[in-house]
Amino acid sequence: MTTFDADHRFMGFALREAARAARAGEVPVGAVITFGERPLVAAGNARETANDPTGHAEILTLRRAAALLQRWRLWGCTLYVTLEPCPMCAGAMVNARIDRLVYGAADPKAGAIESLYRLADDERLNHRIEVMSGVRKHECSAQLKQFFRSRRSGERGPVEVDAPWQEHGGPLLL
Amino acid sequence: MTTFDADHRFMGFALREAARAARAGEVPVGAVITFGERPLVAAGNARETANDPTGHAEILTLRRAAALLQRWRLWGCTLYVTLEPCPMCAGAMVNARIDRLVYGAADPKAGAIESLYRLADDERLNHRIEVMSGVRKHECSAQLKQFFRSRRSGERGPVEVDAPWQEHGGPLLL
Repeated sequence: MTTFDADHRFMGFALREAARAARAGEVPVGAVITFGERPLVAAGNARETANDPTGHAEILTLRRAAALLQRWRLWGCTLYVTLEPCPMCAGAMVNARIDRLVYGAADPKAGAIESLYRLADDERLNHRIEVMSGVRKHECSAQLKQFFRSRRSGERGPVEVDAPWQEHGGPLLL
Repeated sequence: MTTFDADHRFMGFALREAARAARAGEVPVGAVITFGERPLVAAGNARETANDPTGHAEILTLRRAAALLQRWRLWGCTLYVTLEPCPMCAGAMVNARIDRLVYGAADPKAGAIESLYRLADDERLNHRIEVMSGVRKHECSAQLKQFFRSRRSGERGPVEVDAPWQEHGGPLLL
C-alpha cells in the first residue's frame, strides 16, 4: 500500500468517526491514529456527550493510543483527522511527539497548523511534525457543512451526514 | 478577601499540587480551578504516572471541573497554575471559555500566553481570557529549578521540592 493509498484509506476511517459523532449531536470531526501501517485507535468529537472541553477527536485518540502503547511519547504514530487541528490539539500532538499529521479540511477560524498558527513546524518548540493536508478535503468539509446546515434549519439532536460507510464493508472495529 | 489575597492563597494550593507531583517523579507543575471564590478541583502534572501526553495539570483540572459542573463551558471559573501554560493547555482554556487565568513563572521555552504565543488574547479566536501573571513566581520557578537540579545530579524517582505546606494547615481536601 502506497502512502497515498494509506492516507486515503485511514482518512475514510476518520470520516466514519465524524459521521458517528454527528449522529450523537456532536460537530462531526473524526480522528484515527496509526502505528506503523496499523490502525490503533479511532474517536469522534465528544465534547457535548462527555461534557469535556478537551473532548476533541484528536485528544481522545492521543490519550487512548498512549494508554495502549503504555507510553506518552507517540513516536511511530500518524494522526489522521478530518479538520485542521485547533491550538489545543496541535499543541497536544507536539507534546505527544507524533511523527506525522494528515488532515482533510482547513479551519480558517481556529486552525493551528497553517491557518492561524503553525504549531507543527515551530522551531522554538521541542518537536516538529510532518504534515500532509487536504486529504479527502471535499468529503471532510461537506460533512461539516451538512451538519451546520441541519442545525441552522432548526434540527437538534442526531444529524445524519454523508459518510463512506460502504467503502470498507461496515464499521471499523478498533 | 481581596483578589490579591485570593490569588496568593489559591496559588499556594497549586504550589502544593506541584510539590506532590515532584514526589511522584513528575515535573512539578500544579493547578487549581476555582468557581466564584470556591476552590473546585486541583491537580498536579501526571504525564509520566498516567502515560498520558495530555496529562498536564491544567488539562486534568479542566476535565475534572467540567465533570463536576456537568458542562464543558467553564464560565465563572479561574484557573491557577504555577507555570505559564503551553499551547495545548492555553488552547484548552480558550476552548473551555474560562474567565480568568492566574499563573506564576513564565515559560520562555513553550509558554503560549506571553512567551511564544498569545493565545489568551487572540482576537481571531472565539474567546478571550483575563490574565494575571507573576503571582508567587519566585516560589513557582524555585520548585522547578530545584527539581531539575536534583534530576541532573542523578536522582531518579521522587524528588522533594519546597512547598508551602504549613501555610494553610495541611493538605487541601478537594
